[in-house]
Amino acid sequence: MNAPTTATPQTTADHPTTVRSVEWIGGLDGHVRLIDQTQLPEKLVYIDARDVATLWDAIKRLCVRGAPAIGIAAAMGIPLALQQEASADGNALRACARRAAEYLATSRPTAVNLFWALERMQRVLDDPALTDAADLRSALLDEARRIRDEDAAMCRAIGEFGEPLIPDNGAVLTHCNAGGLATAELGTALAPIYIARAKGRAVRVFADETRPLLQGARLTAWELQQAGVDVTVLCDNMAAQVMRAGQVDLVITGADRIAANGDAANKIGTYGVAVLAAAHQIPFYVAAPASTFDLATPTGDDIPIEHRSPDEVACGFGRRTVPAGVACYCPAFDVTPAALIRGIITDRGLISPVTRENIAARIGT
Amino acid sequence: MNAPTTATPQTTADHPTTVRSVEWIGGLDGHVRLIDQTQLPEKLVYIDARDVATLWDAIKRLCVRGAPAIGIAAAMGIPLALQQEASADGNALRACARRAAEYLATSRPTAVNLFWALERMQRVLDDPALTDAADLRSALLDEARRIRDEDAAMCRAIGEFGEPLIPDNGAVLTHCNAGGLATAELGTALAPIYIARAKGRAVRVFADETRPLLQGARLTAWELQQAGVDVTVLCDNMAAQVMRAGQVDLVITGADRIAANGDAANKIGTYGVAVLAAAHQIPFYVAAPASTFDLATPTGDDIPIEHRSPDEVACGFGRRTVPAGVACYCPAFDVTPAALIRGIITDRGLISPVTRENIAARIGT
Repeated sequence: MNAPTTATPQTTADHPTTVRSVEWIGGLDGHVRLIDQTQLPEKLVYIDARDVATLWDAIKRLCVRGAPAIGIAAAMGIPLALQQEASADGNALRACARRAAEYLATSRPTAVNLFWALERMQRVLDDPALTDAADLRSALLDEARRIRDEDAAMCRAIGEFGEPLIPDNGAVLTHCNAGGLATAELGTALAPIYIARAKGRAVRVFADETRPLLQGARLTAWELQQAGVDVTVLCDNMAAQVMRAGQVDLVITGADRIAANGDAANKIGTYGVAVLAAAHQIPFYVAAPASTFDLATPTGDDIPIEHRSPDEVACGFGRRTVPAGVACYCPAFDVTPAALIRGIITDRGLISPVTRENIAARIGT
Repeated sequence: MNAPTTATPQTTADHPTTVRSVEWIGGLDGHVRLIDQTQLPEKLVYIDARDVATLWDAIKRLCVRGAPAIGIAAAMGIPLALQQEASADGNALRACARRAAEYLATSRPTAVNLFWALERMQRVLDDPALTDAADLRSALLDEARRIRDEDAAMCRAIGEFGEPLIPDNGAVLTHCNAGGLATAELGTALAPIYIARAKGRAVRVFADETRPLLQGARLTAWELQQAGVDVTVLCDNMAAQVMRAGQVDLVITGADRIAANGDAANKIGTYGVAVLAAAHQIPFYVAAPASTFDLATPTGDDIPIEHRSPDEVACGFGRRTVPAGVACYCPAFDVTPAALIRGIITDRGLISPVTRENIAARIGT
């Protein structure tokens, strides 16, 4: 394992945010740098992964989280693995890459994006035109970087389509972390906010702390603070009051999976926020790339609700807050019906109103 | 200070719950026993206060909390103080009692019930008929016990009026702790549940954990578990999902203050629960004694929302969960409009529908 390094965020003038959850540093002999999200918000620590074992460990320990970010990290693991295979023989390189892919796939076996990214790397490995070892090495690194760059572009597109929805001096309420830390760069739900900010517009964010794992308090608040965005954290049960006080102009959340009719599964609590937004006549938007749509799933009723360990509720912060022996209810996510969603902000444009037909027209092609 | 004692709860056959938040043990030479609520749910520790300083400290450190329980504890502090005044002279006793009352009033200077209870004790002190020292001592202890017993009876009446609202095998969702720990015995919101249980009826409770201070997880779950009631804790943001899943038959919460039109102020998050209940066609009830109504306050708009320290949100679990420098929104309570309340369960009967007229008829006399 490489020792983690502590550093200040890198600022690049052409990016509206300073957060880079995962990136490749250097050339073919470079390495993967990622933010150790388990240390946030108390410390910004970068992990410089110079071998696959370190990267595997970082994925396993949730140092990197968020479906797109996990996929990017795994893809970068392939060129990283090849650095330890000096052979100029294509077959030896391919065998090494396949071993690395199999190994990386065991780090988070339920992460769909991880497998999707490794399959993309596999297609490069399967390319018969890449006979030269140096070409193969370059092609694999290029593909990993492309996966990252495509994700960044996708987030940027969501941001550009979503930004006009935010009124001047507007306030956005969000839930969980669908930000740069979960993706290559701008995130999904937070992308319109970053783009608004990059355009010099004033925007204010209310971040639900998002129990039980507090991704809103720990991660969303942190990355918005890094980018200089005015952010206020609230307990989840305070969202109704801040809405009633007239302080929220719109809600934007991410999504884990969107059914063909627009019903959207996302972090537990999202559905409640959507109900509250409707009761206060506040528009509720979902931001997600086209890849989040699952058109084979007709409605949200077809999405089973996974339940997680009761200990996430009972012992969330290193101490027990629920009496031993008392049951806890701990669904991982909920489903917001399309009827409560004003629009879905995708990298292909805004889908509004959210109907099966509008989704099919934009996504199903 | 007396050493706290650890003990198992005392079970009395004629009481539907085993929790006694504060009580007087013994006769004139007895003492105050209270549950150290700061140690819940991990340990059940009783504090046996045999002098006023110990009692003051217990109130100050929130070992006893909940407006009625604080009032009872303060009242019992007066006969406790007199044990250290051996004089048989009425004037000396009265001077000692007044010093104790002034001292106890400094323990929680914002607790209205504390002053209300000390004023009741003062009226006994002012009774010119009590010329005999022994009579005065007895009268003060009787009054303190009467304050406790009246509160217990009030809670029991709320329980009896509320119990029929719970359907057979019904599930009640509650928020915060309006239970036995906050009052003499049965609580307000939990009283109908305890009465149903005492009548041998099956009842299930969902307890919102109630951020930021987790009174639901720590206290409501604990006291229901002690009483053998089936209780499940959930994060506040899971209430919408458990309602949508059809698992909640009704909601009952307490109230801190109810305006003349029925708008009810209660722990932050209550209003959101009421909105969610309405959206799921689940009846929402408030349980509170007549003394909680403030008929001089026309509507909830006239109740200012107190905001508490941001650290309650940012550092609620013994470690910082919000980045340093990020703002937190932390209202102490919210106001649920009467239109969202199906009925108010009082010790004088159920007020439903909740209208100014029905409240005036039941409370304003």
